[in-house]
Amino acid sequence: MKEATGVVPGLAVILVGDRAESATYVRNKKKACGHVGINSFEVHLPANSSEEEVLKYISEFNADPNVHGILVQLPLPSHMNEQNVLNAVSMEKDVDGFHPLNIGQLAMRDREPLFVPCTPKGCMELLHRYGVNIKGKRAVVIGRSNIVGMPAALLLQREDATISIVHSRTSSPEEITRQADIVIAAVGQANMLRGNWIKPGAVVIDVGINRVEDPTSPRGYKLVGDVCYEEVCKVASAITPVPGGVGPMTIAMLLSNTLASAKRIHNFH
Amino acid sequence: MKEATGVVPGLAVILVGDRAESATYVRNKKKACGHVGINSFEVHLPANSSEEEVLKYISEFNADPNVHGILVQLPLPSHMNEQNVLNAVSMEKDVDGFHPLNIGQLAMRDREPLFVPCTPKGCMELLHRYGVNIKGKRAVVIGRSNIVGMPAALLLQREDATISIVHSRTSSPEEITRQADIVIAAVGQANMLRGNWIKPGAVVIDVGINRVEDPTSPRGYKLVGDVCYEEVCKVASAITPVPGGVGPMTIAMLLSNTLASAKRIHNFH
Repeated sequence: MKEATGVVPGLAVILVGDRAESATYVRNKKKACGHVGINSFEVHLPANSSEEEVLKYISEFNADPNVHGILVQLPLPSHMNEQNVLNAVSMEKDVDGFHPLNIGQLAMRDREPLFVPCTPKGCMELLHRYGVNIKGKRAVVIGRSNIVGMPAALLLQREDATISIVHSRTSSPEEITRQADIVIAAVGQANMLRGNWIKPGAVVIDVGINRVEDPTSPRGYKLVGDVCYEEVCKVASAITPVPGGVGPMTIAMLLSNTLASAKRIHNFH
Repeated sequence: MKEATGVVPGLAVILVGDRAESATYVRNKKKACGHVGINSFEVHLPANSSEEEVLKYISEFNADPNVHGILVQLPLPSHMNEQNVLNAVSMEKDVDGFHPLNIGQLAMRDREPLFVPCTPKGCMELLHRYGVNIKGKRAVVIGRSNIVGMPAALLLQREDATISIVHSRTSSPEEITRQADIVIAAVGQANMLRGNWIKPGAVVIDVGINRVEDPTSPRGYKLVGDVCYEEVCKVASAITPVPGGVGPMTIAMLLSNTLASAKRIHNFH
């Protein structure tokens, strides 16, 4: 694209506050942009900034022709209204796909969202790359968050899976999960899905990233998923590891959304 | 509201073409408005009207302070782009709840749509009025249309049901349906759900309205639902009839959405 048009795709990231995890995510995103030749712009504001300041930067990036994607790193400090902030991002640059208009288009048949949220898009990409059949299959999504569970279910349904959504109020979640050919776990509860939750041969995607105590590690903890890997890997036909499975896909899809946005804005195909 | 504020809620209906069914629906909606004291405005355009003409009326109604709700009777003639037309209706007057921004807010946790589509809202109202427990129950929605199945599933999930969505690509739909405490059928296939599809004691809502031949009727046909009523009424703990179950609820919810819109616009609570 750079050679053909002179345009270099650009991603702007807004980080508010000093959460160590958020800083790591932002650093990884910038590094990934560098690897593939996407310009990255970063604004780092102190935790006590006002919502107006964040909105001001968003509106600058909305207007900036060098920026094709805008990402507000979540969570925001609690004194800000996340909904206001996310709604301020221009639809055309909403590479996170969190705008309700994008979600609405995702939910509706015969409509196309401009962007699909990165983590569930990464899950679908994994299924596609590994040749997993989706059409007509039973898929169970565990968790109904706006950023993973809900859009993942909508994406699976768009490809003709029969979806069920399991959540904290579900009674006997293991029974429903055991019917699934495809399981996407996104609840944030360490090792929740045990071996007996899984139908033999099912495909399991583990979106969870949870810290559990580990005295043998110098950090004092290790990262595990929502799926008890040791048990489930003996039952499933395919499973993603944590760390290393879905995580890198999220970043890859962010880059892919940014490139797609630059192409759309500059009408380059 | 009229006494307190002098404002009379108003509903505008746009009908294009001469489909007999659509004309009947519009007539019933106007009649219902009359019963409850809502002003109704109607535009009836010939089938060969241009999309621009429809858009012109929508924009007039968008601007008209006497109109609090705008309804475009579907289906539109095939030369029109339904998506363009529906998106032109102002969010604040979208009493049908079909705008993707409304659907997005419906899908997202901690967001509130301005309007909920009338038919699924009517299904929920029936469940509420008859004291049906939803939280933690298994709910199966059959059909994934933008106007019934999909929003019905989202509404059930908002009230903490565990939802599954069955559609034309689902293998063994009867097995999944048999697990449900609550079934909403919206596929448009006469008598599809037989008695053995239903768990004893389940609550069944039948959204389908299908014509089947009936030589004994002067019209030559009768209306039946998606559910085989004679069989299912012996198994279910509650079931809606067709005609007469969900149909009138749809109109009632349209009136309710129009009143809510007038209240919101005039800040009357």
